[in-house]
Amino acid sequence: MLEGTWYLEKHTEDLLFLHKIKRHIYHGKTAYQKVDIVEVEVFGKALFLDGKIQSAQIDEAIYHEALVHPAMLTHPDPKKVIILGGGEGATLREALRHPIERATMVDIDEQLVKLCEAYLPEWHAGAFYDERSKLIFADARSFLENSDETYDVVISDLTEPLEGGPSVMLFTKEFYTTVYKRLSEDGVLVVQSASADPYYNQFVRDVYVTLKEIFPVVRVYHAPIFSFQMDWAFTLASKGRDPKHIPLQEIERRISDFASSLFFYTPQLHGALFELPKFLQDALSSGRVITDENPPIWTA
Amino acid sequence: MLEGTWYLEKHTEDLLFLHKIKRHIYHGKTAYQKVDIVEVEVFGKALFLDGKIQSAQIDEAIYHEALVHPAMLTHPDPKKVIILGGGEGATLREALRHPIERATMVDIDEQLVKLCEAYLPEWHAGAFYDERSKLIFADARSFLENSDETYDVVISDLTEPLEGGPSVMLFTKEFYTTVYKRLSEDGVLVVQSASADPYYNQFVRDVYVTLKEIFPVVRVYHAPIFSFQMDWAFTLASKGRDPKHIPLQEIERRISDFASSLFFYTPQLHGALFELPKFLQDALSSGRVITDENPPIWTA
Amino acid sequence: MLEGTWYLEKHTEDLLFLHKIKRHIYHGKTAYQKVDIVEVEVFGKALFLDGKIQSAQIDEAIYHEALVHPAMLTHPDPKKVIILGGGEGATLREALRHPIERATMVDIDEQLVKLCEAYLPEWHAGAFYDERSKLIFADARSFLENSDETYDVVISDLTEPLEGGPSVMLFTKEFYTTVYKRLSEDGVLVVQSASADPYYNQFVRDVYVTLKEIFPVVRVYHAPIFSFQMDWAFTLASKGRDPKHIPLQEIERRISDFASSLFFYTPQLHGALFELPKFLQDALSSGRVITDENPPIWTA
Amino acid sequence: MLEGTWYLEKHTEDLLFLHKIKRHIYHGKTAYQKVDIVEVEVFGKALFLDGKIQSAQIDEAIYHEALVHPAMLTHPDPKKVIILGGGEGATLREALRHPIERATMVDIDEQLVKLCEAYLPEWHAGAFYDERSKLIFADARSFLENSDETYDVVISDLTEPLEGGPSVMLFTKEFYTTVYKRLSEDGVLVVQSASADPYYNQFVRDVYVTLKEIFPVVRVYHAPIFSFQMDWAFTLASKGRDPKHIPLQEIERRISDFASSLFFYTPQLHGALFELPKFLQDALSSGRVITDENPPIWTA
Repeated sequence: MLEGTWYLEKHTEDLLFLHKIKRHIYHGKTAYQKVDIVEVEVFGKALFLDGKIQSAQIDEAIYHEALVHPAMLTHPDPKKVIILGGGEGATLREALRHPIERATMVDIDEQLVKLCEAYLPEWHAGAFYDERSKLIFADARSFLENSDETYDVVISDLTEPLEGGPSVMLFTKEFYTTVYKRLSEDGVLVVQSASADPYYNQFVRDVYVTLKEIFPVVRVYHAPIFSFQMDWAFTLASKGRDPKHIPLQEIERRISDFASSLFFYTPQLHGALFELPKFLQDALSSGRVITDENPPIWTA
Repeated sequence: MLEGTWYLEKHTEDLLFLHKIKRHIYHGKTAYQKVDIVEVEVFGKALFLDGKIQSAQIDEAIYHEALVHPAMLTHPDPKKVIILGGGEGATLREALRHPIERATMVDIDEQLVKLCEAYLPEWHAGAFYDERSKLIFADARSFLENSDETYDVVISDLTEPLEGGPSVMLFTKEFYTTVYKRLSEDGVLVVQSASADPYYNQFVRDVYVTLKEIFPVVRVYHAPIFSFQMDWAFTLASKGRDPKHIPLQEIERRISDFASSLFFYTPQLHGALFELPKFLQDALSSGRVITDENPPIWTA
Repeated sequence: MLEGTWYLEKHTEDLLFLHKIKRHIYHGKTAYQKVDIVEVEVFGKALFLDGKIQSAQIDEAIYHEALVHPAMLTHPDPKKVIILGGGEGATLREALRHPIERATMVDIDEQLVKLCEAYLPEWHAGAFYDERSKLIFADARSFLENSDETYDVVISDLTEPLEGGPSVMLFTKEFYTTVYKRLSEDGVLVVQSASADPYYNQFVRDVYVTLKEIFPVVRVYHAPIFSFQMDWAFTLASKGRDPKHIPLQEIERRISDFASSLFFYTPQLHGALFELPKFLQDALSSGRVITDENPPIWTA
Repeated sequence: MLEGTWYLEKHTEDLLFLHKIKRHIYHGKTAYQKVDIVEVEVFGKALFLDGKIQSAQIDEAIYHEALVHPAMLTHPDPKKVIILGGGEGATLREALRHPIERATMVDIDEQLVKLCEAYLPEWHAGAFYDERSKLIFADARSFLENSDETYDVVISDLTEPLEGGPSVMLFTKEFYTTVYKRLSEDGVLVVQSASADPYYNQFVRDVYVTLKEIFPVVRVYHAPIFSFQMDWAFTLASKGRDPKHIPLQEIERRISDFASSLFFYTPQLHGALFELPKFLQDALSSGRVITDENPPIWTA
């Protein structure tokens, strides 16, 4: 039946999605953003922030596994991890699969995290209650600038830098310089970098070029995210190890305890993620350096 | 401006897309299907058949390169190629990049091919006028059943088997048995196999299991198609050679003449396409054999 | 903000409405119909049955006053009133403004009436608790056929006769013959008769012609209903008195106690409602007689 | 079939209409506005300016008859008529039904008038070629301010005063003072006044109150316009004669030559149009005077 309630998502100014709603779960606002949690027919439960889909039950695992495991495995033995953003708790969940000592999650929006905790338990799956987890509700930039702790892996799981939004200053060269300083010797940073598609790839190009200014190794990789209806880009930067050259056997060994419970990631897939379509490979070097003075302008 | 003309695409019963239209090019019907050719803001010119997007200017090359080159390269030296369907002429265009002697294209809908020839010249790029091309307007099944010619590569570029549609009987075990007989010794078949996503992958599973009944080597691969808003599956079947084990140097050598003019495909990407997400790899063997008595039921 | 939840109403196959939702109140199903109660931006709280708007806070009074008062005033002194359908209780509310002894409301869908009672108190405004009110949950046709009570005014406040729906057999000549028998000497029947527009007026024409077979006086009138986005038709049939010829002074006297609290109806407007646009006046006699064997087919 | 091209009309920020398109006729821009002429399933051919429906084949006659005939009949014997705006030519067509000497139409948008002439011949029906017609492409305010001709009837058929649009200064007290001066002794002005609905009636209230500052007789009337999905308001102002008190016989006599070819208007309906719903009658006096310094702000 066509009639009924639908969620309208403005994918872009020129492409609208209408998702048929099966169940209304939560509609409201936090201090930072509009929050809609609904169950839609195709994707199951889904979280929309300011009208944009953030993750959906059917395939949040694709995004979160793709974001976390390549970075964790690029570091030879990560013990201390920090997540920037990560509201739903699923990034935390994936990080905790590894034998780490401490996972710190810094998200500015406490209300959102509480809503996800209550309404999206499949996402965090108890990760918030793991004794290795530490939640901090703060601006991630201030937090890192005013700390002298170091981390083995930094996972940037932030919303796109919409004009005036809270994440705008978390993608600049100045911020990444701070991140570099807070990384331990073999430290690895991974940044969710929005679309890897032919049209909307300005952002990943800019992130790539900006990180190249600071890190010796920078690699873009991609994964198709069904509920985003896009191929998605991630940028991994390290102080030395190249994610493309991790031996297959090492990956197999290090994920052996949990490989069977993964949804998307496999050792064989690891290398494949780093092979880019020609158009994207060719375009990468044409990005511009993002700075505090020239923060990213998000247009899609 | 929100107001104006939009193309409504029923992606599924529960997910609608609205594409803002920039220019109307053609709206009409052939003997087989409703045809809409419009220019939309994000994807450029786009062809819709019975309301479903078939290909779009911005990234038709992803689909057509991904469909053609792996199969052509899996055969050691293809000379005779046949395309089943392929209305726009872009599959033909890609096949003709290789040093073949003859490319036969069998499409049931002559009016559609004429419309594409006139309105989508960027797709065929003159392929229809290449002296190696031969166009036949016929049902591909009857054509192959009533012929005794053999082919090195068979490319199935058909629309999804909608109930009562013209392609329903072109995905069955009986038909693929005919294809097998029409293939030369090192012959290769590739079948566009619809969605590779977590939800809508019944079709590729069925095609995979059906081809496994007949061919010694069957491989599923995938590519993210931006304008389809999906990760897309293809199934390659051969009488012997495994597409996963073609030496990188051979691929480089055989595409060297045209590698720089490709949009999507690279020798490095070749192997990556064949690495599947775990959920899809795990699901493949659960398909059912498609037969003339139990033709595919398309539900998405 | 365009993004968010919208109610999609299929006004017709070719005209869709999207209402921005401000607040979700109730989504569910009764034994008879799908019920959505939402607050939309323009119309306030609104009730949708099977995806069609039934009434909205901003102007339900237009519909209910237009339905009730002309019939009540056409009878010289109504004491016993029966409402067929009338779920929300607002028709009852308007009837009770007059000095009647008993208002019986017969609605088949008890769950719906309970939902309206709880969620739409502005509609019934306590009418359900008036000691003159009597609620019966039954099929109105069976109820009238198996009763020998008589009524001064019968108000048919039924949903459109969708194929297979509960109201199909409540618009036929046979049923209206029963109604005629249950009417007292000066008895009056009014039937909400759907659209009065140039395109969708088949239904009111059929109701008109059907009632003409039985009643000596039949008059169609109309009122513009904002939230229906239509001019709406009503058909009034009486055993003698003509609603077009009620003296203005009589109307003024009989509504004087509550005239100031009405939203839409005035004595001056009474006569104006009965003046039809030429296209509708000309079309009326071209209806067909609705019978049990040829029940109405609702197509809009 | 749901799929295909639709016209999206933003009725308000919170209410969107999607009209299924049957045929594309013209899409383009003039110097003043975006023009879309399409044939939609329900309404036939329709003209949209800047995304808002202006008139549709199925019922343009309702709007144009309701706009023209009450004013023409309020003047005892009109000979000289001027139309402000009126692009499609249908207002001119209705005015020419009366035995006038000269009908001057002043529209700022020559391109639009040419498009209507070519693509909407059913609207003008040859009125542009009547020897009594005189077309002037100019700003109507400048035209009237710089002329000393007088008119018996002035018909304001302008688009709503959208911010920055060409009609903003054509609804002010200063402009209506000019109109008053250009009217002959028994002169009549009629102004199309947008929605008569409970929600969106600020504009008609303001026009009413503004005209009351200048004219001795001011009457608001209304007609339900199907393709506008609204009850529509008109404001008639005269130097003396009251449109509510024209004898029925006079109306019958003066329209007798063309009464049978009208679609909407009848002598009986004339008086009914002037009877307003109570909510609108009560609200009228609460408008504010529109002046050049405080031009109308259109929000719907």
